[in-house]
Amino acid sequence: MTELSRRSGVPIPTIRYYIREGLLPAGEFTSPNQATYDDSHVRRLTLIRAMVEVGEMPIAAVGRLFRHLETKEGDEFATLGLVQYSLVRELSPSDGSEAMAQVQDLLDRLGWQVRDQHPARSVLAATIQTLERLGYDDVLGLLDRYAAAAHELAEDEVDLMLAREGLDNRAGAVVVTGVLGDAMLGALRRMAQEDVTAAKLRPARRKSATPRRKPAK
Amino acid sequence: MTELSRRSGVPIPTIRYYIREGLLPAGEFTSPNQATYDDSHVRRLTLIRAMVEVGEMPIAAVGRLFRHLETKEGDEFATLGLVQYSLVRELSPSDGSEAMAQVQDLLDRLGWQVRDQHPARSVLAATIQTLERLGYDDVLGLLDRYAAAAHELAEDEVDLMLAREGLDNRAGAVVVTGVLGDAMLGALRRMAQEDVTAAKLRPARRKSATPRRKPAK
Repeated sequence: MTELSRRSGVPIPTIRYYIREGLLPAGEFTSPNQATYDDSHVRRLTLIRAMVEVGEMPIAAVGRLFRHLETKEGDEFATLGLVQYSLVRELSPSDGSEAMAQVQDLLDRLGWQVRDQHPARSVLAATIQTLERLGYDDVLGLLDRYAAAAHELAEDEVDLMLAREGLDNRAGAVVVTGVLGDAMLGALRRMAQEDVTAAKLRPARRKSATPRRKPAK
Repeated sequence: MTELSRRSGVPIPTIRYYIREGLLPAGEFTSPNQATYDDSHVRRLTLIRAMVEVGEMPIAAVGRLFRHLETKEGDEFATLGLVQYSLVRELSPSDGSEAMAQVQDLLDRLGWQVRDQHPARSVLAATIQTLERLGYDDVLGLLDRYAAAAHELAEDEVDLMLAREGLDNRAGAVVVTGVLGDAMLGALRRMAQEDVTAAKLRPARRKSATPRRKPAK
């Protein structure tokens, strides 16, 4: 346990808590005070920390995710779907009907096939409703661009996921591209906004007068 | 107060709490038990709810944001920067040096000008570090694609922001495209991943055999 804590950087009380909550399998006891943990424990701990610290996921949601992986109901697509759904936070429009229909209209327009039970539908609907209430209909006008960007990234993400062997590794990729992808994209968007804003609001102060270099594809 | 609560959908105790915390200016008292609130209060309340409920921002961060807007230190670019920085969560690499340098390398490669104090640098560095620890170097290979997508969206977002008149309205746009943009993009990414995964894992079950329609630009 001491060794596991040292290698993973996770404090012992936290490790005990994760074991109690069923997020981490207990080690094999070799004596009443000694248990063996292996690399799989270290990897699982790092994944839990990624979800909890980077993804800010509640422990209960992390627990649900691992239970889906253990019970493996349905085929691989169904299980990966349940893993992905557990990464989506709970957020619903306060009066759902109209915004939910707008989401369906968008999906129809894009030609995406997304199951009715996908929880991201109501997250998007709640966001659309908030934008309307705030009078930011112009941001709603960007929805199709956001969707196009999301779909292009998803092609790469799913390829990476399917390049891995075995359901557990693929589920890990779903978690990583979901949770760490959000964090990465959020950070990059904010830095890109600063770069673009600087170019438009104070062009004279920029270090170089050369045109913006296009990011490498 | 009752009227403000009805129009905004925010419970009275929550409104009182926001006033106490300095997030919302108190109304004008017309009698000891009666104060007047106007549309600006309703708009401010909706914006606070967007940050707290959709953006999951801590009340303290929302308070900092409004204080930056009130004190208006420096020029417009500086103030908008402070507003944007208050939208970034605190997350740092556990041993920063190397990952922070990787972020700087990326920014150099992209040609982005981002100030040293931008807090998204350490969020991105922490995420890179976690990806490496988890053995997902292949996801790091997508960083340039994420960055290209982020920059393209930022061009539109900053245009929308600058199309508004006045610092307060522009700051509102920074908040909205930041916080609601994250929620929108996160939801769209998850639905796009389901669409792409379905196409690759169970193509036969798809409703139509026609090639994927490209999302409208």
